[in-house]
Amino acid sequence: MNVIQKYGGTSLESIEKIRAVAKHIASIRKEGDGIVIVASAMGKTTDELIALANEVGKEVPKRELDALLATGEQKTVALLAIALQNLGVPAVSMTGFQSGFITTDHHSKARIKEINTERTEQYLKEGKVVVLTGFQGISEEGDITTLGRGGSDTTAVAIAAQMGWDCEIYTDVDAIFTTDPKINPNARKLDRITYEELMELASTGAAVMETRSVELAKKYNVKLYIGRSLEGNIRKGTYVMNDSIYIEEMPVTGISISDDCSIYSLRGLENDGVAIANLFQLLADLHINVDMISKQTYENNKCTISFSCTDEQASDLDKAIENHELLREILVEKQPNLSILSLVGVGMATATGVASKVFSILAKEGIQYYQITTSEISISVTVNRDEKIKAVIALCEAFGL
Amino acid sequence: MNVIQKYGGTSLESIEKIRAVAKHIASIRKEGDGIVIVASAMGKTTDELIALANEVGKEVPKRELDALLATGEQKTVALLAIALQNLGVPAVSMTGFQSGFITTDHHSKARIKEINTERTEQYLKEGKVVVLTGFQGISEEGDITTLGRGGSDTTAVAIAAQMGWDCEIYTDVDAIFTTDPKINPNARKLDRITYEELMELASTGAAVMETRSVELAKKYNVKLYIGRSLEGNIRKGTYVMNDSIYIEEMPVTGISISDDCSIYSLRGLENDGVAIANLFQLLADLHINVDMISKQTYENNKCTISFSCTDEQASDLDKAIENHELLREILVEKQPNLSILSLVGVGMATATGVASKVFSILAKEGIQYYQITTSEISISVTVNRDEKIKAVIALCEAFGL
Repeated sequence: MNVIQKYGGTSLESIEKIRAVAKHIASIRKEGDGIVIVASAMGKTTDELIALANEVGKEVPKRELDALLATGEQKTVALLAIALQNLGVPAVSMTGFQSGFITTDHHSKARIKEINTERTEQYLKEGKVVVLTGFQGISEEGDITTLGRGGSDTTAVAIAAQMGWDCEIYTDVDAIFTTDPKINPNARKLDRITYEELMELASTGAAVMETRSVELAKKYNVKLYIGRSLEGNIRKGTYVMNDSIYIEEMPVTGISISDDCSIYSLRGLENDGVAIANLFQLLADLHINVDMISKQTYENNKCTISFSCTDEQASDLDKAIENHELLREILVEKQPNLSILSLVGVGMATATGVASKVFSILAKEGIQYYQITTSEISISVTVNRDEKIKAVIALCEAFGL
Repeated sequence: MNVIQKYGGTSLESIEKIRAVAKHIASIRKEGDGIVIVASAMGKTTDELIALANEVGKEVPKRELDALLATGEQKTVALLAIALQNLGVPAVSMTGFQSGFITTDHHSKARIKEINTERTEQYLKEGKVVVLTGFQGISEEGDITTLGRGGSDTTAVAIAAQMGWDCEIYTDVDAIFTTDPKINPNARKLDRITYEELMELASTGAAVMETRSVELAKKYNVKLYIGRSLEGNIRKGTYVMNDSIYIEEMPVTGISISDDCSIYSLRGLENDGVAIANLFQLLADLHINVDMISKQTYENNKCTISFSCTDEQASDLDKAIENHELLREILVEKQPNLSILSLVGVGMATATGVASKVFSILAKEGIQYYQITTSEISISVTVNRDEKIKAVIALCEAFGL
């Protein structure tokens, strides 16, 4: 089978682990298979290089930072190619410029423009495993660029899309679970999940893959596999594919949990566009990134605006409240230390009664909840952080997770 | 002034030192100067990467090793460019492929075929200091290559030749001295030296620069400066230039000292081409790299062959002597623990009586000497290692060094 395999930094953090990955590749490789490996930098290398750059000077120009960071993956691919050759597997490493990853020139967050796979295909024809640097590319001007957070996943999915191959993401989690097994030990492993569900889970806290890479996979219909690197050909991870391929009988596929949430409620605002617009302009000026927003109107043409933000931003906001007339004038109520629970499932788009079931379960358990937001395939509720475990376990049980 | 400056690994071994080098560059830079920096890998990075590769597997394919080693210089140039920019000096880093160093595909010992300086010149036009990776290039097929020992010096001299600029080699010695100051505390610093003299000194032990880089500088008449990196524009090092530029009034410019020498004398060999050819074929088969050779014939058509080799090779040879008929049959005499003293000077080509002066000084001091070899600009004698300091001091005094 032809396949793109991506190995993350944790899977490659030591020489021992690099050799284990090489062994894994050697064990699954059959005559005639086309295998392209995408590798991240070893362990914490990228963080260490960033620290080094910050030690050199206050200002770190992004062009130079990209050139510096690119050495991380370059080191891994060379070592992995050496490890493979020592197991008798013909292998060849390539950096971003060698493997034809042409990107925009937006250093530290470049976008892939095109991939010239000519050299890769030539090496594959020669029966070689091709080991590519993740995360990096080259601009049309010949500058080294990096793709930003989750960049190696993007590299892997992009080349899979280009080649029309499946893409296996080997990471430090066994699979995608119905919810965080650390919160609910009864969490079930998901054999399959849709792109949309994975994106909803990722955007609400379960960061197995960056949304950007999943979006790319969805767009080009790249079949993904997410799991832990193993000896042999046993796949215990999760496949990500199009929802059309299978019908999920259950409306909820998983629950993601995000702890970093505070809610503010501003009561007694004038219910006209101006006051509300001024409020959000002020929040934008304070660089407060608002997540969930809800508005309720009541008598006297007044309204209440509630919104959530991260704990760090909440502390910025608390300081600002003292200094800003607009915020001082209105009644501000803060609900700190909340958790957001997001129930995600493509089945939700067609199933009815999911919301009411959620509310009745929480009520039955005596769990108070605050802000609620919904999307086509998700419903998110905020609960007090000290009640989240109780809530997750109850919801998992009710929805068969 | 337009200049190429090369900084070695010791000068760049820490963030602190990288910042010091940046400060040095900033301090000497004047409006309108064209400055190209060639940087080595930080400190022992290259050795550490080689060790890492050897840890991964017994066989280290050279293509992959080159890709791995190239990360060393790439890291330094990015950090140095960051340091320069933080001092307000516009700077830009480039790797071997970006700076157009096209080489042969002989991995680990590639030769530079051509340098496309287009991007470098564009950056210089924009008033930027250009920071290039030493030691590395790219083959015409797009593979990363390295230039072998002393490669960063070669990079610097090659680009200096291409641009027609002077080349400053900043290293961990203050200058070139008449002899090793550790041996003779009265050794004098040389303000100037010729390419040939530097090559003779290098090839006989004073390894400030690899012969290959000096040869290249001579061929393209690149004016070299060798010294320690300093604050400000004070140059206390040594200039290397063509002998036509200045007339050295003294026949001897310097004395290099090499400790690693044993001499073997084989007596009673048949004085015909066959026996001697067989002997050297045998030495070649044993991978004994013979340095100085001398032959003396005497009565009965017999001769004596003497040759020198390193101490390590001497121990190989000692083992071999027991097993080889040819060597067992002839009388072998070994003179271990010798030092080679090489008196070097372009003046020697025209001056007479240098050799006799050397011998009379050694005789006067009661110092025994063995093998003697001469080239146009050098004379080398071997002495017992425990007498070398005495010999060096006496010779320095006699020749005004």
